[in-house]
Parts: sequence; structure tokens; C-alpha cells
Amino acid sequence: MSDLQEDPLALAAAVLAAQPFNAVVGARVTAFGDGAAELVLDIEERHRQQFGVVHGGVLAYLADNVLTFAAGSALGPDVLTGGVSVDYLRAARSGRLRAAASVAHHSRSHAVVTGEIWHEPADGEPRLCALARGTVFSTAARSAS
Amino acid sequence: MSDLQEDPLALAAAVLAAQPFNAVVGARVTAFGDGAAELVLDIEERHRQQFGVVHGGVLAYLADNVLTFAAGSALGPDVLTGGVSVDYLRAARSGRLRAAASVAHHSRSHAVVTGEIWHEPADGEPRLCALARGTVFSTAARSAS
Amino acid sequence: MSDLQEDPLALAAAVLAAQPFNAVVGARVTAFGDGAAELVLDIEERHRQQFGVVHGGVLAYLADNVLTFAAGSALGPDVLTGGVSVDYLRAARSGRLRAAASVAHHSRSHAVVTGEIWHEPADGEPRLCALARGTVFSTAARSAS
Amino acid sequence: MSDLQEDPLALAAAVLAAQPFNAVVGARVTAFGDGAAELVLDIEERHRQQFGVVHGGVLAYLADNVLTFAAGSALGPDVLTGGVSVDYLRAARSGRLRAAASVAHHSRSHAVVTGEIWHEPADGEPRLCALARGTVFSTAARSAS
Repeated sequence: MSDLQEDPLALAAAVLAAQPFNAVVGARVTAFGDGAAELVLDIEERHRQQFGVVHGGVLAYLADNVLTFAAGSALGPDVLTGGVSVDYLRAARSGRLRAAASVAHHSRSHAVVTGEIWHEPADGEPRLCALARGTVFSTAARSAS
Repeated sequence: MSDLQEDPLALAAAVLAAQPFNAVVGARVTAFGDGAAELVLDIEERHRQQFGVVHGGVLAYLADNVLTFAAGSALGPDVLTGGVSVDYLRAARSGRLRAAASVAHHSRSHAVVTGEIWHEPADGEPRLCALARGTVFSTAARSAS
Repeated sequence: MSDLQEDPLALAAAVLAAQPFNAVVGARVTAFGDGAAELVLDIEERHRQQFGVVHGGVLAYLADNVLTFAAGSALGPDVLTGGVSVDYLRAARSGRLRAAASVAHHSRSHAVVTGEIWHEPADGEPRLCALARGTVFSTAARSAS
Repeated sequence: MSDLQEDPLALAAAVLAAQPFNAVVGARVTAFGDGAAELVLDIEERHRQQFGVVHGGVLAYLADNVLTFAAGSALGPDVLTGGVSVDYLRAARSGRLRAAASVAHHSRSHAVVTGEIWHEPADGEPRLCALARGTVFSTAARSAS
């Protein structure tokens, strides 16, 4: 807990590094704390679907993970995501994705979190790519009940 | 289009094989046609998160893809998924995931699709692992408008 | 609690009668128990929107309430609905609406519930009108934690 | 169409007045145009559920309607809401509800809309009461296809 208070971003990076699935996707955490989090992903060939744009599943993965990190920064590390929804607004082909989430409201037992995924093309303005929303439970509150 | 009518499952497998991101995840399509689809994934270490269970992002990926395939079997191959929501019900640690989806209703322009992800442990009964729902657009209808 | 065990449907009807907003909408509960519930509404002029079909808000109300009742039959009477989503599939003009919900999974702390709203026209086959899904919390588990 | 361009808010008020279900609920539209809309509701006894707070179905109704109005201000009057989701954050007992929505992204065929419902108690600061999100279709685009 001392690490969490001293360097929350380093803790979040360690958690992300401990997720084998993120090793195949390759996101990195660039902000964490105070009910908010941000993940960044450099778009590569392996992230695409058959039409050459980023797979919706990659966006859904980013949504799931950034919402969970944001909730964890408010509820503590023992969280379990109950559900996630994603609206896909625009396709992304290359450049970078930036997924940012923040807690809209939380109690001891759960948090409601919203997020946005922005597409940052190499040569253009960032564009809103997807909206996300989810509910995350504190398992610490659960096991205490 | 003749292939689609003659062997829809072979067509679906070819589409899945053309998704670079699926090469990373490793799902295979086991049913496709008449507004329904099924994907199967053998759980491996790379699919897990930091607590040793399948990452929510893997379930979200399966949900996104199986809903889109189911819609494509009703709307045709030119589809674009508008949004997906997933409720996570139980954690899955090892064995196999089976994601099945079917179209609840569709017009020419879009389909509403529901899905379930079942966890099939090596040594036990299948258990409902996640619920999914999404909206998929026909881009053929769009470009004709 | 003895009433609940002896005649769950009568209890549910009493709860519904204690909701002032239902007095203006006019639904009645026709099934309640074992993680499931059903509400029925006779469509009248006051339920419509400007095009003469049932207002989406009426369907959303039915979804919210039937999901909450279904969850209450599993979690007990002290519940709080965390969120509801509704997909509108077909418009309903006259006749009757039947909203049915059942718990897909629940722990002590919350339930994930799915529902369907069927339109029963006076002169025709029932048609699926809307899909619903929601998360309902047990406030008893909360206050004990 | 001239009215719409000259006084969009008056047009929106006329549409709302043409919804019989809104006569039962009693919301009024206080902003409309440029992809955004706002509805206001004075909380009365008839809006409550059995615990004395505003019924979730009232919030779901406001969400459905304000999202649809916001979409209609971008897509034109011929719209059909495909789906709505609402997260309930805090209970509201008395005072006023203010539901505001804006289009996050739209094409000719549909819009993705987000909204917030704020509770304005008679004697206190406004508090975020619910989050909403939905997809709205243009039926004009449809019928032209």
C-alpha cells in the first residue's frame, strides 16, 4: 500500500505487466490515480481486422482495461469488472489509440466509470473513436460482507 | 457470394483467418449461418490477467466478434459493429470458452444480436460466463442510401 | 417474510401498488418468484408518443421495473437497480405488452438480469418488441458490509 | 421545416406536447438544437416508487426522450431510437431533474448520443443522478435506401 500511495503509476504499470493478455496486445499505462486512468496503444498490424482497421475487440479490450484501472484507483486493487459497453464511433487505421477513463460515481461496493478512446493519427487531429462505460465491483467490500 | 451460399462456415473461417488480431487471440469459428455464429477458444496462459483468470478483454473480444459474425450471416459480409455490451458473470481459469450469438431482430439496415459465452472446464459442467449484446449495421444498405 | 414465502405474487402486487409512478402507467404483475417476474400492460392512448405507437419511455419503464422485480425475487426486497439497457426491436401500437425477466446470475451482492418485452396485438401473434438487461444490487448485503 | 429553422425550441415543445405519455409524466423541453437537448421535470408524488424516491422508470423515460430529442436535432425529425442504457448513480427525492443530452457522433443513418440526468434539490447543490447513452436511427435515411 505504501507503493500505491508513493507512486500509483508505477503500481499500475506493474499490474499491467502482470497481465499476460496485455503482453500480446501491447498497451501501456500513462496515467493512474484519483479515479482516473489512461492507456496508450501504438497501432500495429496485429491489431487489425480483415478490412485493415483496428479490430473492435482491441477497442473493447482497451475499454475493459482502462475502466477497470480507473475504478481500481478509487476502490483499491481488489476489483472485479461487472460489465462493459462500448460504442464504436470511427474506425482507426494507424497511429495511436489513447483510452482515458474516470469514475463518475462510486460507493464502497462499486464504481460506475466512463471512458473515451481517441485515435491519434500520425498526421492529423485526434478523433473520438469509441465511448465506453462500465460497472466495477470492489471484492474487498464483498469479502468483508 | 456463391461460396457463402455453398459453404458458409468455410467463408466465415476465411474471414476470421483474415483478421490479424484473431491470430494473436486464437479463436476458431465452429458455426455460422442463418443469423447465428459460434466461436471457440482454448484457454492458454496468454489469455489471462494478473489473477490467473481469462482477461475481460478476451471475453469482450469474443463477444464483439461472435456478435458481428452472427449479424453478418443475416445482413451479408459488409457489416460494421456499432456497439457491444458485455456482462461478466463468472471467471474462467482453464479449459475452453464457447461464444454463441444469434440475431434477435434485423432490418435491412441493422441487426440487434445477443450472445452468451460459456466456460467449459476440462473437468466439469459448462457454466455461463458472460452475456453479450450488440448492434451491427449493414454498410451495404448505407452506401446504397 | 412469511407472506413472501406463502404468496410471493401477492407481495409483488403490493409492492407495485405502492409505487405511485405505476399508478399513472398502469402495469400489473402476473408472475413473481424464483428469480423471475412478469408485468403486463394494456396499451392505452396515454402510453403513446407523437407517431401513435407506445413511447420508448414506457418500454424502458417496464424494463426497469420487471428486471428489478425479478432480481428482488432472488435477492430479497431490499434492492437497488444499478443500470438498465433496452434495445427497441419493433413498435407496438395497440393490444398488450408482456414484460418478462429472469436472473441470469446472482451473488449475495448483486444480480444480472435479462428480460424481453413482447407485444401481443389484439388480432395477431405475439412479437418480440424489446430486449432488456440490467444489474441490481442488494442493499441488504451493502448495509451489512 | 421553416419553423424548425426559425424556432427549434418551439418545434421541440410542440413534439413533446404531441406525446400523450409525456402528459402523464410532465417534463418540459428547455433546450433543443445543434445536436443537443434538455428536459426538465419537477418531481411530484406521482414520479416516486415505494421507497419515496423517483422511480427508475421516470429516469429511464427522461433518458430515452432527451437522447431522442438530441438526435433529432442533428438527424431531423424522422428518427427512431434503437436502444438506450441508463446507469443510476444517486436517488432523487424532491426538487427538480434536469436531463441533458448531446450527440457524440452521427452519420446520415444514425447518431450515438450521451446524456446526464442531474438532480437539483430545492436546498442544495445539483448532483449527478444518472448517466445515459443511446443509438438513434434516421428513418429518412432508411426509407431512402
